[in-house]
Amino acid sequence: MLDVPPAGARSRGAEASTTRTGFDDLWAEIAGIGRVDASGGYRRFGWTETDLSLRAWFEVACRARQLTVTQDRIGNQWAWWGDPDRGSAKGVVTGSHLDSVPDGGGYDGPLGVVSALAAIDQLRDRGFVPARPIGVVAFVEEEGARFGVGCVGSKVITGALPAEQALALTDADGTTLAHALAAAGTDPAMIGRDEEALGRIGCFVELHVEQGRGLAELGRAVAVGGSIWPHGRWRLDFPGEANHAGTTRLADRKDAAIGCAQAVLAARASADRHDCVGTVGRIDVRPGGVNAIPRSATAWLDARGRDEAAVRAVVRDVTAIAARHGGAVRQESWTDGIDFDQALVARLASLLDDAPVLGTAAGHDAGILAGAGIPAAMLFVRNPTGVSHSPAEFAERDDCLAGVDALATVLAELAGAAR
Amino acid sequence: MLDVPPAGARSRGAEASTTRTGFDDLWAEIAGIGRVDASGGYRRFGWTETDLSLRAWFEVACRARQLTVTQDRIGNQWAWWGDPDRGSAKGVVTGSHLDSVPDGGGYDGPLGVVSALAAIDQLRDRGFVPARPIGVVAFVEEEGARFGVGCVGSKVITGALPAEQALALTDADGTTLAHALAAAGTDPAMIGRDEEALGRIGCFVELHVEQGRGLAELGRAVAVGGSIWPHGRWRLDFPGEANHAGTTRLADRKDAAIGCAQAVLAARASADRHDCVGTVGRIDVRPGGVNAIPRSATAWLDARGRDEAAVRAVVRDVTAIAARHGGAVRQESWTDGIDFDQALVARLASLLDDAPVLGTAAGHDAGILAGAGIPAAMLFVRNPTGVSHSPAEFAERDDCLAGVDALATVLAELAGAAR
Repeated sequence: MLDVPPAGARSRGAEASTTRTGFDDLWAEIAGIGRVDASGGYRRFGWTETDLSLRAWFEVACRARQLTVTQDRIGNQWAWWGDPDRGSAKGVVTGSHLDSVPDGGGYDGPLGVVSALAAIDQLRDRGFVPARPIGVVAFVEEEGARFGVGCVGSKVITGALPAEQALALTDADGTTLAHALAAAGTDPAMIGRDEEALGRIGCFVELHVEQGRGLAELGRAVAVGGSIWPHGRWRLDFPGEANHAGTTRLADRKDAAIGCAQAVLAARASADRHDCVGTVGRIDVRPGGVNAIPRSATAWLDARGRDEAAVRAVVRDVTAIAARHGGAVRQESWTDGIDFDQALVARLASLLDDAPVLGTAAGHDAGILAGAGIPAAMLFVRNPTGVSHSPAEFAERDDCLAGVDALATVLAELAGAAR
Repeated sequence: MLDVPPAGARSRGAEASTTRTGFDDLWAEIAGIGRVDASGGYRRFGWTETDLSLRAWFEVACRARQLTVTQDRIGNQWAWWGDPDRGSAKGVVTGSHLDSVPDGGGYDGPLGVVSALAAIDQLRDRGFVPARPIGVVAFVEEEGARFGVGCVGSKVITGALPAEQALALTDADGTTLAHALAAAGTDPAMIGRDEEALGRIGCFVELHVEQGRGLAELGRAVAVGGSIWPHGRWRLDFPGEANHAGTTRLADRKDAAIGCAQAVLAARASADRHDCVGTVGRIDVRPGGVNAIPRSATAWLDARGRDEAAVRAVVRDVTAIAARHGGAVRQESWTDGIDFDQALVARLASLLDDAPVLGTAAGHDAGILAGAGIPAAMLFVRNPTGVSHSPAEFAERDDCLAGVDALATVLAELAGAAR
């Protein structure tokens, strides 16, 4: 069935060199886009000028490879090798996202997109012609850094996030997603579950930098992603009463920051008790004057765990503490735990020299597609420190190239060679 | 000595009516400047467009009263009835500030400026001509809402805040005071202790809305301010390590928000123990992504108390908690407790029907001038709820007018009538 040489042969010689050059070139092309000099990290948020630059780069890079580029109705970009609308075989899709968290690293997302294009280069160099169409996708707003909800692009096209809810999301400046879409030239009225886009996907394999130290501890470069923990995000609103920080007796105060601080500590302690992770990464205290008692404080809780009951227990604990201070807790998002397609996972692991199968607590577009019934899996590339969502996020170049090799192997296997 | 009728006579008849109209007109003229519709409060910060509007209003209102308007080198505005540079008698100065905390009330500051002009109207209507010059000052950036340090205008002209330190202050956007001054047409190189401005002040009486419920509890409309508690502001910086909120084990985290939350709670608890007040009104968590572990958190502590030792004890407690989390505490400002000129305080209280003498925990420009050796005191106008630094800040119109009457009485007494 397979039309590709074994892994050992691929990692040496002319083909590998082309892969290296292609990967390095692509990586260099986006290195400056959305980079923040002060932190060394990236601020790449959906529907911003930076996003437009990344979209333009993706389109140019794909056209240079004679891939056909389209956008679906919410603005995810798709590039096709072969026509996904011709014949009965659905596409083998890979790719990831190009956006980042605030001051995030350069690997989370872009590594999957760049590796996809580099893998296609490698297959082309080998003279491989796929029997089924191969697609590369760049999902929009995966991190949720701008509108507070992750995987907006994949959630909207699968219907996991209803259009009305999506359009009403607001960013820190009060701009709605509807407004941001319109400003970017996308018709907000058109977004929603997108059968056309979904109908082209036969299976989806997302390559991603690992966000933990699993591979580093195992001494391997590439793993197959087997599952995603259930996770959610909650908004905690604490009321207070603005007043003068000097003249208001402690007993007379309603200081919104007090309940908020209690909730931050409760989230950590409860997550520890329930073997979950719990994080408050964003806090908004108003009016924010150094000599004004806070009249409101809002905190966002991110909680994840191996099973839903444990995560719900953490949220219950935090809610109880919040309630003591008059605070209200509202679920902003929830994503069920996902076991990726186990046949696909086993097939990939076996194909990649018995690669380890790892779970992750990070949400991914692959999880959203899997939740919509699309056979999906992931490839993880070793992260020596495990650090992610930080300028210090990193993967060795050799490991990235091993990821490209692995992805090329997988695409060739899943798409099959044209006869 | 006194050229004014007794208090009872002043509160009725033609003169009182003029005062009312004048006060109401002035109040209405500034009501819309810097108002935030969403909160009903004000955002009037130094060296902004709103500040320029307030300055223009002050100049027009003063010129309409044939007062001579000047600016000192940092940009405090002074309006004179009589020439402070002629003759040996220094001026009797009143006034306050026009800036606000974020979403603050309309009384804190502007009441003192508007009342000063209304009091001058009243004296003029009576045919009073002062023997000494009477000055009205509008100090710039008293609240410190923009640059984090209060009483910038009075601290710079007295030298309490050295010019180099002042110029290096930055606002939330990273703009330095030096830059803001230059943008407003003020030469940063010229700021510093201002002997010319100080040399014109014989004494200073600042009228201010009370920021507590002292007068409400006593059933009086006007009090004399006798002292200001020592107070200071500290910046607390907590380090962390940005990382993914889902994939980083709790044990591997350095989450800056945890120490910050502990410090917020410690400040409150310690202030309670030491009979002080302690407030964290501003918190800045970075990068601020809902799914990113905070790599830094900064909190600002405002602490005040009747005596310095108690305030220092609070800061020591908070510093100890911060240190446990690797946090650093830096004093951003400190203002010694001030006992106003006791002879002046007694004279004013006796003049105003034995007005009560109250202390306050709020900082004021009057305290800065007193600290520089200028005889100073304050008048407080009843605040029925005690709420301040909030859109709900309020004083009854009749109490405001009683404040104008009291201020007119005080100015006439201190300036004396020309013979």
